[in-house]
Amino acid sequence: MNAVFVNGLVCKNPKYVKPEDFFFSGLDKAGDTSKNLGSNVTLVNVDRLAGLNTLGISLARIDFAPKNGLNPPHIHPRATEVLTVMEGTLYVGFVTSAPEFKLFSKVLNKGDVFVFPQGLIHFQFNFGAVPAVAFAGLSSQNPGLVTVANTVFGSNPPISDDVLAKAFQLDKKTVDWLQAQFSNSN
Amino acid sequence: MNAVFVNGLVCKNPKYVKPEDFFFSGLDKAGDTSKNLGSNVTLVNVDRLAGLNTLGISLARIDFAPKNGLNPPHIHPRATEVLTVMEGTLYVGFVTSAPEFKLFSKVLNKGDVFVFPQGLIHFQFNFGAVPAVAFAGLSSQNPGLVTVANTVFGSNPPISDDVLAKAFQLDKKTVDWLQAQFSNSN
Amino acid sequence: MNAVFVNGLVCKNPKYVKPEDFFFSGLDKAGDTSKNLGSNVTLVNVDRLAGLNTLGISLARIDFAPKNGLNPPHIHPRATEVLTVMEGTLYVGFVTSAPEFKLFSKVLNKGDVFVFPQGLIHFQFNFGAVPAVAFAGLSSQNPGLVTVANTVFGSNPPISDDVLAKAFQLDKKTVDWLQAQFSNSN
Amino acid sequence: MNAVFVNGLVCKNPKYVKPEDFFFSGLDKAGDTSKNLGSNVTLVNVDRLAGLNTLGISLARIDFAPKNGLNPPHIHPRATEVLTVMEGTLYVGFVTSAPEFKLFSKVLNKGDVFVFPQGLIHFQFNFGAVPAVAFAGLSSQNPGLVTVANTVFGSNPPISDDVLAKAFQLDKKTVDWLQAQFSNSN
Amino acid sequence: MNAVFVNGLVCKNPKYVKPEDFFFSGLDKAGDTSKNLGSNVTLVNVDRLAGLNTLGISLARIDFAPKNGLNPPHIHPRATEVLTVMEGTLYVGFVTSAPEFKLFSKVLNKGDVFVFPQGLIHFQFNFGAVPAVAFAGLSSQNPGLVTVANTVFGSNPPISDDVLAKAFQLDKKTVDWLQAQFSNSN
Amino acid sequence: MNAVFVNGLVCKNPKYVKPEDFFFSGLDKAGDTSKNLGSNVTLVNVDRLAGLNTLGISLARIDFAPKNGLNPPHIHPRATEVLTVMEGTLYVGFVTSAPEFKLFSKVLNKGDVFVFPQGLIHFQFNFGAVPAVAFAGLSSQNPGLVTVANTVFGSNPPISDDVLAKAFQLDKKTVDWLQAQFSNSN
Repeated sequence: MNAVFVNGLVCKNPKYVKPEDFFFSGLDKAGDTSKNLGSNVTLVNVDRLAGLNTLGISLARIDFAPKNGLNPPHIHPRATEVLTVMEGTLYVGFVTSAPEFKLFSKVLNKGDVFVFPQGLIHFQFNFGAVPAVAFAGLSSQNPGLVTVANTVFGSNPPISDDVLAKAFQLDKKTVDWLQAQFSNSN
Repeated sequence: MNAVFVNGLVCKNPKYVKPEDFFFSGLDKAGDTSKNLGSNVTLVNVDRLAGLNTLGISLARIDFAPKNGLNPPHIHPRATEVLTVMEGTLYVGFVTSAPEFKLFSKVLNKGDVFVFPQGLIHFQFNFGAVPAVAFAGLSSQNPGLVTVANTVFGSNPPISDDVLAKAFQLDKKTVDWLQAQFSNSN
Repeated sequence: MNAVFVNGLVCKNPKYVKPEDFFFSGLDKAGDTSKNLGSNVTLVNVDRLAGLNTLGISLARIDFAPKNGLNPPHIHPRATEVLTVMEGTLYVGFVTSAPEFKLFSKVLNKGDVFVFPQGLIHFQFNFGAVPAVAFAGLSSQNPGLVTVANTVFGSNPPISDDVLAKAFQLDKKTVDWLQAQFSNSN
Repeated sequence: MNAVFVNGLVCKNPKYVKPEDFFFSGLDKAGDTSKNLGSNVTLVNVDRLAGLNTLGISLARIDFAPKNGLNPPHIHPRATEVLTVMEGTLYVGFVTSAPEFKLFSKVLNKGDVFVFPQGLIHFQFNFGAVPAVAFAGLSSQNPGLVTVANTVFGSNPPISDDVLAKAFQLDKKTVDWLQAQFSNSN
Repeated sequence: MNAVFVNGLVCKNPKYVKPEDFFFSGLDKAGDTSKNLGSNVTLVNVDRLAGLNTLGISLARIDFAPKNGLNPPHIHPRATEVLTVMEGTLYVGFVTSAPEFKLFSKVLNKGDVFVFPQGLIHFQFNFGAVPAVAFAGLSSQNPGLVTVANTVFGSNPPISDDVLAKAFQLDKKTVDWLQAQFSNSN
Repeated sequence: MNAVFVNGLVCKNPKYVKPEDFFFSGLDKAGDTSKNLGSNVTLVNVDRLAGLNTLGISLARIDFAPKNGLNPPHIHPRATEVLTVMEGTLYVGFVTSAPEFKLFSKVLNKGDVFVFPQGLIHFQFNFGAVPAVAFAGLSSQNPGLVTVANTVFGSNPPISDDVLAKAFQLDKKTVDWLQAQFSNSN
């Protein structure tokens, strides 16, 4: 028998659907923040929770190490994110599009909520002395993640250093060094 | 000067937009669960956080009193909900549409996640001895809330008791009594 | 050869598509109103008329027995309904969402039209002495149907009677009796 | 006080909304088929039923004179139409897009249903000896109507007859005569 | 292994996707304008550039022979078109829907841009002495094309000449002659 | 009289709409490539061509200086772009999202077409000895533009250099120098 696909994913025969198809477990566990610049995102999207398919939403837990745990500047190509702080303190912000490039930033404490509109570069930073934890809703079952530095300096194969040197006003030696750094980090 | 409206809401002049327009405070505070069947929903939708307009998402905190705190059967007409338990234990479920009327239910513990698809009746119930807290993302900046019992028995003006007696296979005396109860509760 | 699927349904090779793929027959026949509370819905959705797939619309005929034929309170999770009366008289209505729970109702005669917005609980009731017939357009090829009483009291398996007793302010004995009634009716 | 607009239409203050805002009356009345090629469309769209705004659906009654009452080839730029015959017999059809230009046509009797996909040219024709009546649902609150002959030959100002003569392989005299006909008919 | 389909088209395994899947070559070549009324459309849609699937856009080059090269009145059922002239001069226009049937037309020179809204009949005509070239973006990866004359007079099988004679106020002999012309041209 | 707004923009009374409302002039003129890294984008979006409102498309001309004219890495938060080369040669590419960060790049010659999916970082670079010109369609009337370097290093106010130093693995002195560069360039 052929499988039925919706959005490129297998769509289970309704007869055999179970509560577990709408269930995911483990968001109480802190992510490992010893790598990745001191942050860790646990994203419950359609890959991990099949019942989200076509429903236009996902959920994430983000852990931050104390003293500079960083979720670095990134974009979700298909989702707006609304985040709330569960523990600790975060400096967060997003930048509007050209030609204003306005930074809207805020220091968030426990219980504060902030919005990061679809397709805009944003970040979250824990400058505090204790770990921070945030939860976020995203307006797609498959939001996607474009980490700016890794995308620009760590792509595979690399972007021409002529392009990057000019775009970032850096000499090529610095670009090459950055590319080596991020090439290792992916 | 006239105001500019988007989706029926005032759209601020971009020049005067501030970080505060994307900010909400207070989700760390437990809602009062002494009324409303022992639950309390704090919904951060476009009415409370203007920056959500057009962005298709909102966030909620739901508090449950211990020993039977109930978020009773309800529907969001314009949103799917994905919920995670922060504290305590919840018995949750939703029922599929006709003709199957299948109940998909689950007991959720801390860190568990469950999906309630758009337009389906669902509930959350704290049968545990301690308070429970959940956070949820909803796939609309204005999800709407149709509480089944209040809608059916507590509308203003009331639905004809001929209709309700037949629909729920109750005698009219019981329906009238229910309507009196829910009329008071709104 | 593998079948091609769109929205989880087989998409016919365009070469072999025929006029019959856009055709359905039988909306002139009155539905049997001797069961189901005295009403009967004939819904022409994508399951019955394959050519509707992706096109966002379906059509229904609703028959009502005289003297209290009822299409009981229900919701379409994915569609708005616009209905017109062909024969007889109907008392119809829908209830807005929280916290207003306003009932918008109307007695409709032949040629009258009424709108039931997506995701809101609505009903149609023939209190007249002759049969009534209505036709309706729905804004989805797969609108779905959530009949409130059957969903709440007749799901399979049943919702905990603790939940329902509290939600509807009924004693558990009444809830159990209702569950027995609706369990039989599905 | 300023009015609030949604989709360019005034959005009433929810406090003052009444059941009448979701109501339209008169679809039981046959349209006048003595003009317009022997057909008459009564369209209940958002202009006539304000409560349809944003809800993505409208409803139409179409009357046909006996012996060649015609709803001539036309397009709805923003809607699919699903039609059912209430009385009489109709020859209906639509043509697929380039390069096939396949005609899918059918003779419809009472109770038959046919689909006319969005943006495709379609027509309905009563070749029978008695009047015909059809009802249709359309997947937009503002479907729009592009009558082919009136659009092509009766626009204001007229399209250059060089263009039309070449496009329709007619001599300019015939085009000019057609333009005179349709110019009068609008 | 079964293929995965999205929108009825094969969706390549991401592992094997190559730059070529987002690439098309040949828009620098003038289309053959010796047939088709003196125009030629090279449309880069999802059939020719698989990487456009789900992305809602396509691109076209349109060539016009000098002295009356015509892209005849047509409709895109699923797309708005925005066109710019690269070489030569074009008389272009579209007609609004009923009941106004207003023609919005303009003579476009090199560098001019014009919009043809979704589902409205439009045309482009080169009345100049030199060839003309235009490029256009369309708001769908599969815009579709309904050429009015070919659809109406050249469908397969043909539309009844009773319908067409009445709709276009032509005698049946003229209609039959037109049908013979367009039948040959498809 | 109050103005009517759609999407936050004034919607003209249909009576007074003119062909000019669907018209823009000047895409034949080369943009000034002496600044902005040697490229210049002329974007015909809804701000410049009011008739595009709600229609989901815009058009752009991009000019590139010879010898390293660069349209630097950027994102359109609300649109996919499909581009074709009119003159010259371009090295173009986009990078997929995490965790693959694959670069899909290609050297494009006259008549070649490439797709840049919504929300992904992409660039175009003229390494040739002659000027290059490209035209592009974008799948939104208001695509937005997030230039990566200006957003990250040139926002107003600036993003904390702690964040940027860590995210890009640069020392703060380099970050401060970059911020000074891009602060001047906006």
